[in-house]
Amino acid sequence: MTDTAVRDANAAIAASLETVPTPALILDVSKVDRNIARLRAHLAQLGTGFRPHVKTSKSIDVARRLFPEGVGPITVSTLAEAEYFADAGFADITYAVGLSLDRIARARRLVVRGVRLSVLIDTIEQAHALVSAAADGEPMPAVLIEIDCDGHRGGVLPDDPALLAIAEVLHGGGLELAGVLTHAGESYNARGGEGLPEAAEGERAAAVAAAERLRAAGHAAPVVSVGSTPTAHFAQNLSGVTEVRAGVFSFFDLVMHGIGVCTLDDIAASVLLTVIGHRPEKGWILTDGGWMALSRDRGTQRHPVDQGYGLVCDIDGNPFADVIVEDASQEHGIIKVRPGSGASLPDLPIGSRVRVLPNHACATCAQHDSYHVVDGTGRAITGQWQRMRGW
Amino acid sequence: MTDTAVRDANAAIAASLETVPTPALILDVSKVDRNIARLRAHLAQLGTGFRPHVKTSKSIDVARRLFPEGVGPITVSTLAEAEYFADAGFADITYAVGLSLDRIARARRLVVRGVRLSVLIDTIEQAHALVSAAADGEPMPAVLIEIDCDGHRGGVLPDDPALLAIAEVLHGGGLELAGVLTHAGESYNARGGEGLPEAAEGERAAAVAAAERLRAAGHAAPVVSVGSTPTAHFAQNLSGVTEVRAGVFSFFDLVMHGIGVCTLDDIAASVLLTVIGHRPEKGWILTDGGWMALSRDRGTQRHPVDQGYGLVCDIDGNPFADVIVEDASQEHGIIKVRPGSGASLPDLPIGSRVRVLPNHACATCAQHDSYHVVDGTGRAITGQWQRMRGW
Repeated sequence: MTDTAVRDANAAIAASLETVPTPALILDVSKVDRNIARLRAHLAQLGTGFRPHVKTSKSIDVARRLFPEGVGPITVSTLAEAEYFADAGFADITYAVGLSLDRIARARRLVVRGVRLSVLIDTIEQAHALVSAAADGEPMPAVLIEIDCDGHRGGVLPDDPALLAIAEVLHGGGLELAGVLTHAGESYNARGGEGLPEAAEGERAAAVAAAERLRAAGHAAPVVSVGSTPTAHFAQNLSGVTEVRAGVFSFFDLVMHGIGVCTLDDIAASVLLTVIGHRPEKGWILTDGGWMALSRDRGTQRHPVDQGYGLVCDIDGNPFADVIVEDASQEHGIIKVRPGSGASLPDLPIGSRVRVLPNHACATCAQHDSYHVVDGTGRAITGQWQRMRGW
Repeated sequence: MTDTAVRDANAAIAASLETVPTPALILDVSKVDRNIARLRAHLAQLGTGFRPHVKTSKSIDVARRLFPEGVGPITVSTLAEAEYFADAGFADITYAVGLSLDRIARARRLVVRGVRLSVLIDTIEQAHALVSAAADGEPMPAVLIEIDCDGHRGGVLPDDPALLAIAEVLHGGGLELAGVLTHAGESYNARGGEGLPEAAEGERAAAVAAAERLRAAGHAAPVVSVGSTPTAHFAQNLSGVTEVRAGVFSFFDLVMHGIGVCTLDDIAASVLLTVIGHRPEKGWILTDGGWMALSRDRGTQRHPVDQGYGLVCDIDGNPFADVIVEDASQEHGIIKVRPGSGASLPDLPIGSRVRVLPNHACATCAQHDSYHVVDGTGRAITGQWQRMRGW
């Protein structure tokens, strides 16, 4: 749907949880604001900077809760996000996915537009490709070297000879080495908070060690960027770190709840659904919310508490104990009591509405074009905020 | 992106698998045409009608391969799909998800526009709501009663007293009972084709039995609608059935391959990705395709052959033996040899491109706004076809 069509639809629909067409993505902005304030306060206490990741919301309106009039700094996962946020005035952007060689020209166009853009590399090939591109003398993005702090994905180890070799190639080509960046992806395998202070310290130590090696070799490397939502909340010491990145913290979700980073009450995003049938002999309530509305993400499948395709709440967002979306087809969801639980199904006649807390906010929100905003005080929908998508 | 923006972007990009920005959804139209021709021939031989489901493609351009100039019949999973296809001239549409009471007014607007629309119900409450709405004398959609043939989802059993009770309510309110509809969802649990002829016969028998009960009670019930992609291909006798529905058959996917309905070579949709790094010590190749491009669907997870997040092919679509996307984060995918396999990783330097066959075409295609079309003869992209989304 075009933006205009969405605005028209918005004008046409009655603005309430009771009447908005379902499935609908609901965002409680009072929880978003609370989640942002909490992490900001924690990082301020630790004396480090904050570069939130906007890949969860992909929304200017949500980013404006972080930076009401500001220009960042933000982190993005695609160049399409960088372009979308640059269009809205954001001017300090780190693109935190390893740079594909055929994206160099597109990244430079953002720099030419005046964006302070940093890109991420972890190989000599990427460094050579950037140097080659720079030969024409036009502006280039700054470069961060990705550090592997826990074997989760890409990056060079802090003591890998490749670290200095990449820096030398960049230096030789006259490119700006901004510093180092790491992400403790393994922290997602924690449960109940256990091990997270140690994961945060491992992330810090790896990034600082890499930056110190670069500096000892004569490179300035001013930026030391770390972060994941779990480690950001459990870090106790961030000395040497210049900025922390975190993304899903603004919305939270059932995965973060299982990891031990938030309460159920902190989860700001949910999917509003309508009951369309019952199969009492099977203990099923059928809704109009299948995986198209909830996503196929089963991120809690291996958690001690498997939340199925999401935890079911009443229309006001109060969870029913042990009631989950147990199965989903494209446009149907089956609500059931969690297997093994002694709970009973709530009384939800045909036409009732429920809200489902997502396993993974990034994935569930990506199934929708906009957020229907509530403010935590009632059922009125106070706004409709757009999301972007694509690459 | 708006349609105009997509067209502009299309004009700007070089039209080849080697140059199109990745991740990109690729559709081999020669395979689509072959898949359509095969199922059409099978159903023609069995002497029944065909009402393809367009929820997989959600694309007018793909639907035009089924009906080059026609108006249907088609099946849809949302009223937004019905409206989108009606805008393009499709005029015979079955909305095959149980009707939510608050959607009656919206469904009627399609009827007023001249669409032959059938809606689906399985409760007395829905029948009463339709009768109530009809009291104003304006046009109403035709009604199908959903039959449960295998305990998979909604529907009434063929011998359930509710079947005749619903029909009586509709009759009393002057509504058109078009007939019955069933879907053998349990057929998705088959493996290697085993049990599918029996599932097809069970689906047929349940629907025909329900229609005969209705007719014995004096209701015309002319439509007997059955179908799923697995049962449609394995049905040996469809006597009494007036139409078959199938959706994913036009694209196929790894789930259908595991169920035994297609070969790997039949799979028409794939996701084109670029290699962005290597971790040889871990046996990893990193790509720019994470779950945002591939979807979170892990539909082969419980199959004898688990395909991870998809089976990896070269740029021309030839599968590498036992090479899969083993893990995915939002914008990264990790390619690995299938655990336990003796295969070795292909040589894929940074910048190489691969195509990934999806577990579930409906879910993977939903992550993209358009199809980049190839014709099976080379690497040229011959068109860009739009998809719709939302509800």
